[in-house]
Amino acid sequence: MDQEVGGSSPPSCTKIMSKQKKLKPELASGFRDRKGNELILKDRLIEIIKRNFQLYGFEPLETPGFEISENIGKFLPDEDRPMSGVFAFKDEKDWISLRYDLTAPLARYVSKNFDSLSKPFKRYQVGTVWRNEKPGPGRFREFTQIDADIVGTKNSLADAEMCILLADTLNKCGLNKNEYLIKISNRKLIEGLLEELKIIKESKKLTVIRTVDKLDRVGIKGVEALLGKGRRDKSGDFTKGAELSENQIKKIIYFLKIKDMRQVYSFSKNDKFQKGAMEINEIISIWAKTNQFSAQIKFSPSVVRGIEYYTGAIFEANLLFKVKNNKDEEIKFGSVGGGGRYDNLIERFTGFTYPATGVSIGIDRLSYAMSQKKEFKNNNPVVICYLGDTLIFKKAFNKCLEVLRKSKINSEIYSGDGDLSTQLKYANKRNAPAAIILGDDEIASETATIKNLKLGKEKSKDLKTREEWRSSKPAQITVKLENLVDEIKKII
Amino acid sequence: MDQEVGGSSPPSCTKIMSKQKKLKPELASGFRDRKGNELILKDRLIEIIKRNFQLYGFEPLETPGFEISENIGKFLPDEDRPMSGVFAFKDEKDWISLRYDLTAPLARYVSKNFDSLSKPFKRYQVGTVWRNEKPGPGRFREFTQIDADIVGTKNSLADAEMCILLADTLNKCGLNKNEYLIKISNRKLIEGLLEELKIIKESKKLTVIRTVDKLDRVGIKGVEALLGKGRRDKSGDFTKGAELSENQIKKIIYFLKIKDMRQVYSFSKNDKFQKGAMEINEIISIWAKTNQFSAQIKFSPSVVRGIEYYTGAIFEANLLFKVKNNKDEEIKFGSVGGGGRYDNLIERFTGFTYPATGVSIGIDRLSYAMSQKKEFKNNNPVVICYLGDTLIFKKAFNKCLEVLRKSKINSEIYSGDGDLSTQLKYANKRNAPAAIILGDDEIASETATIKNLKLGKEKSKDLKTREEWRSSKPAQITVKLENLVDEIKKII
Repeated sequence: MDQEVGGSSPPSCTKIMSKQKKLKPELASGFRDRKGNELILKDRLIEIIKRNFQLYGFEPLETPGFEISENIGKFLPDEDRPMSGVFAFKDEKDWISLRYDLTAPLARYVSKNFDSLSKPFKRYQVGTVWRNEKPGPGRFREFTQIDADIVGTKNSLADAEMCILLADTLNKCGLNKNEYLIKISNRKLIEGLLEELKIIKESKKLTVIRTVDKLDRVGIKGVEALLGKGRRDKSGDFTKGAELSENQIKKIIYFLKIKDMRQVYSFSKNDKFQKGAMEINEIISIWAKTNQFSAQIKFSPSVVRGIEYYTGAIFEANLLFKVKNNKDEEIKFGSVGGGGRYDNLIERFTGFTYPATGVSIGIDRLSYAMSQKKEFKNNNPVVICYLGDTLIFKKAFNKCLEVLRKSKINSEIYSGDGDLSTQLKYANKRNAPAAIILGDDEIASETATIKNLKLGKEKSKDLKTREEWRSSKPAQITVKLENLVDEIKKII
Repeated sequence: MDQEVGGSSPPSCTKIMSKQKKLKPELASGFRDRKGNELILKDRLIEIIKRNFQLYGFEPLETPGFEISENIGKFLPDEDRPMSGVFAFKDEKDWISLRYDLTAPLARYVSKNFDSLSKPFKRYQVGTVWRNEKPGPGRFREFTQIDADIVGTKNSLADAEMCILLADTLNKCGLNKNEYLIKISNRKLIEGLLEELKIIKESKKLTVIRTVDKLDRVGIKGVEALLGKGRRDKSGDFTKGAELSENQIKKIIYFLKIKDMRQVYSFSKNDKFQKGAMEINEIISIWAKTNQFSAQIKFSPSVVRGIEYYTGAIFEANLLFKVKNNKDEEIKFGSVGGGGRYDNLIERFTGFTYPATGVSIGIDRLSYAMSQKKEFKNNNPVVICYLGDTLIFKKAFNKCLEVLRKSKINSEIYSGDGDLSTQLKYANKRNAPAAIILGDDEIASETATIKNLKLGKEKSKDLKTREEWRSSKPAQITVKLENLVDEIKKII
């Protein structure tokens, strides 16, 4: 335990590097590393998404990781423990917090720059967000979101556009139309229903909404239990319920089972509920005129979204194909994005209502799911190896590199110290498609020997000399330098 | 002052949104927002840099923003106030800190995954870093770095490659060869010199190194003063000096004035100093064999780098063209990147020396400078406007959007509520290259009216009716829908 930081005081910071006790190179709890092709995929998706957001007329915005705590509040769907939810830090003057989403900072930004912005203001933002929640398996405290929002219009076109944008973006990311579904609803439905059921207290309303939001995870029986006395999960843990009456629960469960917009209008006479139904209808009718993606949007009453600031239309993007977890088990994957209308969030600054609507894509979840679907091109470099134990850099190496890189082929010279066997092991470990071997013969004759590592993953162990290596007959050819690029391209 | 958070307790977090006192939408001190074409440029540069790093065989890595505080230490070139430098939080078990660079987390990552990594391990990382420094004009507490490192080789090729990578990357970003310079030196030079001058105490050595690192900012006279009794700056503030002897100061100043590698060898007989000189020579000789960028690298004794963990070769990328600040004054811009060899950093975890070398590009600084150099294509959308006060979404709008977006033209329908004049004002404010106007006439005849906003920024004020708008004769044409894309492309 000599690595533990004692007590509650900060670790002393060694200004001068000195021999210390060995540190344990652990990650902070709830955080993770990622590398290689997983990141290449994530990056590629981010690029596609950004490009598509630009295509729809959104401009980029970057706000800082920290905001003054009070300005972003804490509208999170998490438990009610003090200071949970956000990472807060006492600055010289204010408490500052790491953002937990990109919407609260947008409200602050719009208010700060209100006069100079074009209205409506359309922006997208890619950014890391942090949630100071209890870490658990597959639950991380840091992730990337990509948001697009339209601020300053209450027009239903803006909401409809959000759904279209979400669908089109998933499409451009490489999903077929039968592989995702955009579910829409309206916060006014559940709020109107709660009004009708005389559930008035704000905290009680929020509890019910967040319970309904768990439908995908706990199922209809689970929601029923959580609306009542409570629910015991598989692990034996008991979660206390909202303690609604039987009649209240019954009506809410009926509501969640609605399949069709036509059933909605007759379900409740409540004004708010009726207004919500009308708004959904407006969006669907705009959507219907776009020809594209008409089967990719569907009304679903169970979409409520756990975040409290929504006031109208709400949407959620769900993947329909099978996703496996790390243990190779198929899992209920849930949503990769969503959003909605939040007409009151900016009011906290401006003092007057200023409407807004937006979507957010969980790019970490999306790329996790996509990585199981698509084979992306091997991005690993071709490795130039040399004969002998020590590298003496020669002009020929550079010539070789230059032609490869000019042709946009990822490539490198092995830069460690090691014999050919070590170098080839390195190339294999990096999943290099090919190794190029340059010895004195090749250099003299302006040729290069190409070993196709994709073809045969021969045991390169024990191949210490050129003779041994030659006699092992790996998948290899020697080519003139001017043909190198063409030959490598054949392999890649 | 009703926005201030009182005392030292965290702000109470309103779980339920309710009418509150109006908040002030201020940024946290030392942070900033960025938007629009500035970000488009930054993004474009990041893409170019990442692509180039991949071309050189580096694979991407993503480590979290937080690390266990003790694991990343604090090797920062800042003042010695307690807890300064980093943002640290008390987590359930450990103190965790936001990373202040990408190198310390890399050391932790390599140690954690030592057995499974290819060696040498080459990775790049793009990431936000935070410094909890006193904010000042142009000094921000959050910025983006892009790093490339080779871990596990002491070969000079790796150091040489870092310089080449840095030069080639700046080149690919759009800089001409006479617009940047890579300066190289070796930490062993200054360390050997200090040894010779009997400056032994670690803290004193670090003070001298950080003083020399300020040369660009304070000039040779400033360094001289800071090595002695101290320096009073323009504002009248006095900074206490290192209090070296006159002879010590003299020798260091001579050293800084060395112009040529040939002078180096004879300057000091100290072993460490001589070793440093040899290592520089090795890098330069590899560099010389690459043909490219031969004039873009130069030995410069004043390059020492303020971060303490460097042990050998050090490099710095400087821009040579004039850069202006926000007040339109030309400024000394300094470096946009740099790095060096740090052979002992990983030892803190592994217990044995494991060599490494790397570079870091300050992308915020680079894109700031580049934005003054290059005109990038207007990325703003074409805006589709409609006649009348209220938008009723029509199929024709979508048809128009569809053809534009299919041709990769950024475009949108004005989604607010406002008459044509408001819509055109919006299009102008967004710097849209063109507005497309769709009225009943256009829809009936399958045409669109294009207003070239680039050509004439006519006063669109007071143009409330179609008639007024027509008679104002703006730069406009009406075209068949099938010709829309071609006409818009002419304007863009």
